[in-house]
Amino acid sequence: MADQRLQAYLEQDEGDVLVTADPGLVRMLTGHVAEVDSGPSPFALPALVIAPGDGEPILVCSADEAPGDGLVETYEGFTTNPLDPAGRAQQALRRALASSGSAGRRMLADLATLPAAAYAALDRPRAAGAPLLLLGATKRADEVEGVARAIAVCDAGHVAARDATRAGATELDVWAAARAAMERAAGARTPVLADLVSGPRTADVGGPPSPRRLAGGDLVLCDLVPRVEGLWGDSCATWAVEPPASEAAVRVHAAARQALDTALDVLRPGAVAADVDAVARAVLADAGLACPHHIGHGLGFRSHEEPRVVPGGSTVLEEGMVVALEPGGYLANEGVGVRVEVVAVVTADRPRVLSGHDLALL
Amino acid sequence: MADQRLQAYLEQDEGDVLVTADPGLVRMLTGHVAEVDSGPSPFALPALVIAPGDGEPILVCSADEAPGDGLVETYEGFTTNPLDPAGRAQQALRRALASSGSAGRRMLADLATLPAAAYAALDRPRAAGAPLLLLGATKRADEVEGVARAIAVCDAGHVAARDATRAGATELDVWAAARAAMERAAGARTPVLADLVSGPRTADVGGPPSPRRLAGGDLVLCDLVPRVEGLWGDSCATWAVEPPASEAAVRVHAAARQALDTALDVLRPGAVAADVDAVARAVLADAGLACPHHIGHGLGFRSHEEPRVVPGGSTVLEEGMVVALEPGGYLANEGVGVRVEVVAVVTADRPRVLSGHDLALL
Repeated sequence: MADQRLQAYLEQDEGDVLVTADPGLVRMLTGHVAEVDSGPSPFALPALVIAPGDGEPILVCSADEAPGDGLVETYEGFTTNPLDPAGRAQQALRRALASSGSAGRRMLADLATLPAAAYAALDRPRAAGAPLLLLGATKRADEVEGVARAIAVCDAGHVAARDATRAGATELDVWAAARAAMERAAGARTPVLADLVSGPRTADVGGPPSPRRLAGGDLVLCDLVPRVEGLWGDSCATWAVEPPASEAAVRVHAAARQALDTALDVLRPGAVAADVDAVARAVLADAGLACPHHIGHGLGFRSHEEPRVVPGGSTVLEEGMVVALEPGGYLANEGVGVRVEVVAVVTADRPRVLSGHDLALL
Repeated sequence: MADQRLQAYLEQDEGDVLVTADPGLVRMLTGHVAEVDSGPSPFALPALVIAPGDGEPILVCSADEAPGDGLVETYEGFTTNPLDPAGRAQQALRRALASSGSAGRRMLADLATLPAAAYAALDRPRAAGAPLLLLGATKRADEVEGVARAIAVCDAGHVAARDATRAGATELDVWAAARAAMERAAGARTPVLADLVSGPRTADVGGPPSPRRLAGGDLVLCDLVPRVEGLWGDSCATWAVEPPASEAAVRVHAAARQALDTALDVLRPGAVAADVDAVARAVLADAGLACPHHIGHGLGFRSHEEPRVVPGGSTVLEEGMVVALEPGGYLANEGVGVRVEVVAVVTADRPRVLSGHDLALL
């Protein structure tokens, strides 16, 4: 039957059925791991789910990616026939709506992820109003273990990235080593978001790896975000290419580590996200640092979801929420940026830290 | 002013303005290279373009990805503020529509790629009816050179993949070497679609790399499809892990090579796509082989576009079309599959082959 989190969401927004193509919600509601790796396909639209509050969700996707079990309505994907993925997806969606008895029900549409073709085939849809990033913020035990497997993949990436760090290597060399290690650990080709910057680029907060060559005295800032079996991991560390690190790097790293530990200390049920954000920012401010980004965010179905650990973040933490904490400090004038990040599960006691990678500067 | 290819498209479909989020058409019409690498972002919707037939196209995207030049309407992306990418994108789209004087004009919407949020903000849109995969099939000279750079990246991947091929290595090892070489050649992190299968898996036509270990006598089928500066490359080869290859592999490889050469011989202006398909299939049929996929396809703005070289393919070839030809044969009973692929530009004379990778079996 329907997921209790979905039921609560629909009640809040006075809907009967949610229709979304968010790959995270597709994963949560059906278990299906949709392709996210290369943009629109000429053969198929993104997989979507029709999820009633009182029945089983129906996946609508091309036959190429249809899973072996669960309710699914498919259409022809890869083919030598004339292509019309929008039209075929619409027909499959209409079949699924008919078989699910959705006629006359209050449909909530996820306007951010649904393709126009799907939206146009719905009967008087309303925009889903309540924040969808809250749906799935609290994880079941098996989902937490799935995120833990993704974090283990991050850990493998960090080991390889440190091993590949040496003066003369490029950022792309370090990245290639990290990605290969992550894919070996995952046993599969793996979508990965990542920041991998070095030297003065670390002061820019992030960015993709470039052909820049590492030099002694440089920092490497490495933030790895792989998707494993449809669940996202996330972890960051910053290290020096060769000792000694600059005084500025040592100072910012110490502040970031302390901010991280302080945030972990207050990561418990009942805490408000903004308060977790505030304690970490206070530590950074004491060191004369301002963090231009969130202190943290929920993680799992998407790479960034609720609870968002930001100023003004009103989400109240609950057991089973999975949170990435990633305080950082950036000194543009000195060309130094440091960020450290671990992922932790909110429990009744101390948070359970899933990350096992090395956070040390040296 | 407007692209002549766009003008012809709009005339055919009786529209005044095309609105699309196809990253290929965004690239063609604005030069912008939209992110395609990791699925929906919680901060922004995909970049889209409002393209009138008689004026300059307007890009609508988050401020994070806004290019330095051209007409662009942006909205806040990455932020610690509350998130509402669908609402912000709608507001930006409405501003762009107002500034472009699109009110009352006949809007054609690309239902396959536009997010519902964008579609819902348009004034009485019609679905784009004529096949959008034809738009951009004929390339300008600078676009051909861009595809040639993507093909050079493919070539680098093939050299590395062959170098990494040895008994005991895994498919993922070969893939890691290919991807690292492609990213070094491109000088940037690079989206890549790929088939990389070995041994009996080659008979499955394709699939992602796995932890399977290569053994003597195996084939490796490697089809690399990177996106470089917003344009796609594509190339395939199939080789033996160690000589000698099986008799079946030698036979199928010879037929695929002959089918490829035969198709290249008829790739000229005025030829109908189905006829190019037919000559290659005839060569394969003479060898007792049936090819379960297209013989080829257009390439550049998307990894698969017009002209589709398929049975029934009615597109007439023109100078400046860029075509990937990839005949293959697959013997399920013997666990053998072979595919060879090159990319060529249709010219008044012989096609100009862009691919430089090794097609040899041994």
